[in-house]
Amino acid sequence: MTGTAPAPFTADDYRARMERAARQAAEAGLAGLLVAPGPDLVWLTGYTPTAVTERLTLLVLAAGRDPVLVVPTLEAPDAERAPGARALTLRDWTDGKDPYAVTAALLDPEGLLRGPKGGGGALLGISDNTWALHLLGLQKALPGTSYASLTEALPMLRAVKDAAELDLLAAAGAAADAAFEEIRQVAFAGRRESDVAADLAALLRRFGHSRVDFTIVASGPNGANPHHEVGDRVIERGDMVVLDFGGLKDGYGSDTSRTVHVGEPTDEERRVHDLVREAQEAGFRAVRPGVACQEVDRAARAVIADAGYGEYFIHRTGHGIGVTTHEPPYMIEGEERPLVPGMCFSVEPGVYLPGRFGVRIEDIVTVTGDGGRRLNNTAREMVIVD
Amino acid sequence: MTGTAPAPFTADDYRARMERAARQAAEAGLAGLLVAPGPDLVWLTGYTPTAVTERLTLLVLAAGRDPVLVVPTLEAPDAERAPGARALTLRDWTDGKDPYAVTAALLDPEGLLRGPKGGGGALLGISDNTWALHLLGLQKALPGTSYASLTEALPMLRAVKDAAELDLLAAAGAAADAAFEEIRQVAFAGRRESDVAADLAALLRRFGHSRVDFTIVASGPNGANPHHEVGDRVIERGDMVVLDFGGLKDGYGSDTSRTVHVGEPTDEERRVHDLVREAQEAGFRAVRPGVACQEVDRAARAVIADAGYGEYFIHRTGHGIGVTTHEPPYMIEGEERPLVPGMCFSVEPGVYLPGRFGVRIEDIVTVTGDGGRRLNNTAREMVIVD
Repeated sequence: MTGTAPAPFTADDYRARMERAARQAAEAGLAGLLVAPGPDLVWLTGYTPTAVTERLTLLVLAAGRDPVLVVPTLEAPDAERAPGARALTLRDWTDGKDPYAVTAALLDPEGLLRGPKGGGGALLGISDNTWALHLLGLQKALPGTSYASLTEALPMLRAVKDAAELDLLAAAGAAADAAFEEIRQVAFAGRRESDVAADLAALLRRFGHSRVDFTIVASGPNGANPHHEVGDRVIERGDMVVLDFGGLKDGYGSDTSRTVHVGEPTDEERRVHDLVREAQEAGFRAVRPGVACQEVDRAARAVIADAGYGEYFIHRTGHGIGVTTHEPPYMIEGEERPLVPGMCFSVEPGVYLPGRFGVRIEDIVTVTGDGGRRLNNTAREMVIVD
Repeated sequence: MTGTAPAPFTADDYRARMERAARQAAEAGLAGLLVAPGPDLVWLTGYTPTAVTERLTLLVLAAGRDPVLVVPTLEAPDAERAPGARALTLRDWTDGKDPYAVTAALLDPEGLLRGPKGGGGALLGISDNTWALHLLGLQKALPGTSYASLTEALPMLRAVKDAAELDLLAAAGAAADAAFEEIRQVAFAGRRESDVAADLAALLRRFGHSRVDFTIVASGPNGANPHHEVGDRVIERGDMVVLDFGGLKDGYGSDTSRTVHVGEPTDEERRVHDLVREAQEAGFRAVRPGVACQEVDRAARAVIADAGYGEYFIHRTGHGIGVTTHEPPYMIEGEERPLVPGMCFSVEPGVYLPGRFGVRIEDIVTVTGDGGRRLNNTAREMVIVD
């Protein structure tokens, strides 16, 4: 049961991705890339170890060298079966040996990367979620080298999706939409948030998700906490309910939010919901190639701020999605990188009124040649549930 | 659904643990401890964020200061409900702000810890699994400081269990044993490894596990790969089958292995099984206060090496267990730290004959005042299954 690799990709696809990563690394002035288990490794090799432990597993991509995957000897048989294994060489190490010395020898056999004491050596990229234990081991084994996180050094490595990836993301989005069409039919009033969340998780799985990452059901005042997941609160008639759910289908992510109302809303509830819908539309309309990511945030935020609710929109407008449900690019003030066709991310403004209710509306959007295309297409008008 | 904290512990317990950690840190020459979400944070505070993302959550323990948990604003409401929240102060930060600057100001408000360019500053401990992204952010925000992983700097922080923890580990072990007593009754021949593994997982849950970490069912030649989990192989009459399973019950771990045989074994199979059983017994008998960890490994390994199978015992003899199923202390050559009453770890020698079969026998053992006590107590003789 190893590897939850995206189904349709071959060793050649993984080879091409590793070459793209090595090329981008060289362009960014990096002498190499070090990638630990996690989404970057899945994307580059299709490999996921059975468990992530203190034993080092690390993909080493160095300019002008073939890719090498450093793995514990115990895990080598599993790694050999990864979809991308034919595109790389395995280098196993046994308990008691120093895996950082092994990695250093691969990266820098002639000792050219190490700098004088205190710095001056080569710059290496390292996957964000690599354990500090391993980074410290590498810093010691390669004195003088310095490190940049992959998100900092190559933030857009996985951000531009190819056609096959876009198909998978669209299919994941359609499955999440199908789950919403079903959940809006179920009873809300009188049931616990956790019951509705269980329904949502079952629906995501029924529509093909292999992993459910989150099923937020935030009713009434709980909706004012954007990260409230679910609780035992019994949903009441008159509640606004934020639904935000997603996971992985065939290795690619879904993430959509709709805010429903149990019975008829008040005028204020309707006004706030309309406002968030207008903000979401403005964010979506800002999407086109060449526009800075922060412009998507600004467009959505301006609508909410102009209506006097600016202080209640307490998170960024969006995040990328791919082999994870949460990755670059980020739609946030200060992110000046331009949108590129093939990028996929959420547009999800919200308003959170402490102690009262919240509203969030979220679609995944992909950048096209001349604008944006939504991968979620259920009604954005307020849906009334029972 | 936040926090999978061990049930019986109060804010006072967490306060005592944080004080113990701060004291040990000072004794080890550390100016502070930085703890990201994961087992160390669970043990110190009872807090587990809903998801671990690129947003920094970090417990800051600095000598002479009260504990502070740095959390994203969005997650502050969840963090406030953690069992240890009353024993610390929350310091939230909002998207767009620099959480490393926040952390640096907490750790080093007067700029005393930073060294001259290139080093010479204070030494800080950081949890092993902290993301490299965060360590790099801290290294930049606190120039000159240096870092040691918690496993390196305070390897035994969580290693010595108190009475309440020992009770929980014993209960987890008893539940795993109950699962073994049931699984030895089921049909093996003609079923897939994955079917037996599903039975094992269901049994662990039935006997109170909230999380199943691994259910290894490695039949025939698959048994020769110590990290084979399960596959589609249909188990046959005449197979040896390695079963290795565990997870968390009430926040504390179980981990036990038994090797069963489908029908009557050959003389060689019986001989190898007896050998591993003898090695396991020797490892167990080596356990007593003051003995170096490596002596447990040596004792078990000597039995196997003396019988000529040394090259087929390809992993260390054991690992610690607590709020994780895999932690210090390690029973491995080179680990010279002494055993202390209250430590808990596996004793799990094995022999792996490539392409043929494997045998592993594993108990969790805790160090007592004058020896060791097994927390797994099912038959270590070879069990014949159908």
